[in-house]
Amino acid sequence: MSKPFQRLAVIGLGLLGGSLAFAAKKRGLAHVVVGTGRREAALAYAHTHGFVDAAFLDPREAVRGADLVVLATPIETMAEQVRAFAPSLAPGAIVTDVGSLKGVVAEQLPGLLPTGVAFVGSHPMAGSHLSGVENAREDLFEGAACIVLQNGDAAAVARIRHFWEELGARVVLRTAHDHDAEVAWVSHVPHAVAFAFAHALQKAPKQAGELSGPGFRDFTRIARSDAALWTEILVANRKALLGPLQAVVGELNALIGILATSQESGVASGTRGEIAEAGQVAGMQNFLGEARTALQALSREENE
Amino acid sequence: MSKPFQRLAVIGLGLLGGSLAFAAKKRGLAHVVVGTGRREAALAYAHTHGFVDAAFLDPREAVRGADLVVLATPIETMAEQVRAFAPSLAPGAIVTDVGSLKGVVAEQLPGLLPTGVAFVGSHPMAGSHLSGVENAREDLFEGAACIVLQNGDAAAVARIRHFWEELGARVVLRTAHDHDAEVAWVSHVPHAVAFAFAHALQKAPKQAGELSGPGFRDFTRIARSDAALWTEILVANRKALLGPLQAVVGELNALIGILATSQESGVASGTRGEIAEAGQVAGMQNFLGEARTALQALSREENE
Repeated sequence: MSKPFQRLAVIGLGLLGGSLAFAAKKRGLAHVVVGTGRREAALAYAHTHGFVDAAFLDPREAVRGADLVVLATPIETMAEQVRAFAPSLAPGAIVTDVGSLKGVVAEQLPGLLPTGVAFVGSHPMAGSHLSGVENAREDLFEGAACIVLQNGDAAAVARIRHFWEELGARVVLRTAHDHDAEVAWVSHVPHAVAFAFAHALQKAPKQAGELSGPGFRDFTRIARSDAALWTEILVANRKALLGPLQAVVGELNALIGILATSQESGVASGTRGEIAEAGQVAGMQNFLGEARTALQALSREENE
Repeated sequence: MSKPFQRLAVIGLGLLGGSLAFAAKKRGLAHVVVGTGRREAALAYAHTHGFVDAAFLDPREAVRGADLVVLATPIETMAEQVRAFAPSLAPGAIVTDVGSLKGVVAEQLPGLLPTGVAFVGSHPMAGSHLSGVENAREDLFEGAACIVLQNGDAAAVARIRHFWEELGARVVLRTAHDHDAEVAWVSHVPHAVAFAFAHALQKAPKQAGELSGPGFRDFTRIARSDAALWTEILVANRKALLGPLQAVVGELNALIGILATSQESGVASGTRGEIAEAGQVAGMQNFLGEARTALQALSREENE
C-alpha cells in the first residue's frame, strides 16, 4: 500500500462520492476524509454513517489543506465548482473526477487549476440505476474497471492509479478521446438502446409485463437510470455516439430484413427438413452466430 | 397440494426438461418420473443425478403409462415427436410443453393426440443463456412467470396450472395469440435487439471490452443465448415481431434525431444555464423520462 493522502475532499456526496468517501475511509487511504454537497440531508447522512469525518456546504472549506480532491458532481457543474474552490487549493494537491466523459473534462478543468495542482481524470465504471448517498456502498468499486487518463503528470497519474487499485478497481489507462469513443460502445449506446426500447413499450399490450422474466429485467435495467444524468451524458458525447447508434439501427434493419423475407414455409408448416432448407433461417442463424462471436471477442478483451 | 401424477414423462432432457424432472421429483409431484432424449450422456447424467427414475432413448417407452407428458424439445421437432409416441399414450393423459411460442404449438399438436388425451400448452419464462441438462436446477421455475393456455379442457388446465404452481411458478392464463404477441415484446424483441447490438460490436474498438461494466453485461447477457434456438423462435414468431421491432427502430431514429440536431452550445461550452436553454436537452430529457415511465408502467403490471 502506498502512502495515504493527508486529506481527501470529496465534492458531491451522491452514490459515487458517498461510496468513494466511505471506501477510502474504511481502507485508510487518507488520514482525514471530508465531503461537500448542496443537500444538507445528504451531508448529515454521510457524516452519521461515518463516510466522512466532516461535511461542508462550502467546497472551499472542504478543499482547504486537501492533497486529493475528487469531483463527484454532474459534469456540467464541474467547471463552476473548480472555479469556486481553486483559490483554496494547496500546491501539490491532485484533483481527479468520476465523470462519465473525459474529453470535456480534460479540456476544461486543468486550465482552471492553480500552478502546482495536477489534474488526472478518472472514470470508475461503477454505479447503479439507483442514486443518492443513501445507496452508497463501501464495495462499489471492487472489481470495477476504472479508466484513468494517461496524459497527465506521471507521478500524479501513478498515485491516482494506486488510489483506485486500493479501492479494488481494475485500472485501465486511456487518452480522453479513446475513453469517450470506447465508452460510447460499452455504456452510452447500450443505455440509449435500452431507453429507446423502453420508449417503444408504450405500444406494448398492457398485460405483457405479467409475462416478463429475468432476461427482460436485465436487459431493461439500465433504462431505469436517472433521466437528467443520462441526458447530460448522451448529449455531451453525441459525436462519439451517432456512428455506433446508426450502426445498431443498420443491424436491426438487417435483422428485420431477414424476418420480413421469411417465407411461409418454415416452422408453421412443417418438419425440421423444410426449415433447414429456408435460406432465411440460415441467414438468421448466421446473424445470431456472428453477434455472439462479436460479443465474446469483446468480452475476451475485458479479461486480458 | 393436489393429487400427484402417477407417471411423469419428460420428452427432452435439456436445461428445461432436466430442471422440470428434477423439481417434480424433489417435490413429489409424480410417483415416477421418467425422461427421454437423444443424447445418451444427457440421459446418464439425469439418471445419475436423480432427476429421473428411468431414462429412455425411445419416447414411446417413456410415455407408456404416463398420465403427464411434458414436451421439452425444440418446437420444430414437437409434432414429429408427438406423431411417434401418440399411439402409446393412455386415455386420460395430459400432454403439455414448454415451448417459447404457443400459436404454432396450439395449432399443430392437439390434432395429433388420440381421443381422451388433453393438450394444455405451457411456457415457463425461465431458462438461461446456458443450456443442457448439466445446467439444470431444481429451483429454475421458482418465482418465474409461467403462461398456461386457457382454451383447453378445464380440468386439464386446472391440473397443469397446479403443477406449475407447485414448481414455484406464477401462472398467467392466456390465449395462444395473446401469448405470442405479449412475449414478442417482453422476450423476443429484447433478444433481437440485444443480438443486433452485439452484431454491431464488430465495429467497436477492440479494447472497448476492457471498459465494460455490469450494465453492459446485463444488457448483453441475452445475446449469449443459443443461436439455433433463437433462430427458431424469431423466425416462427416473425409476424408478431415485425411491428415491435420497427417501433424500436423508429424510437432509435427519434433519439438519433435529437442528438444530431443538438447544437454546439451545450455542455462543451458552458454552464448549467446555457445547457438548460437548449431545446435538444429538453427533448432528450422528455424522451428518457417517457421511456422510464413506460418501463415502470409495464413492470407494475408484472406485480399485479
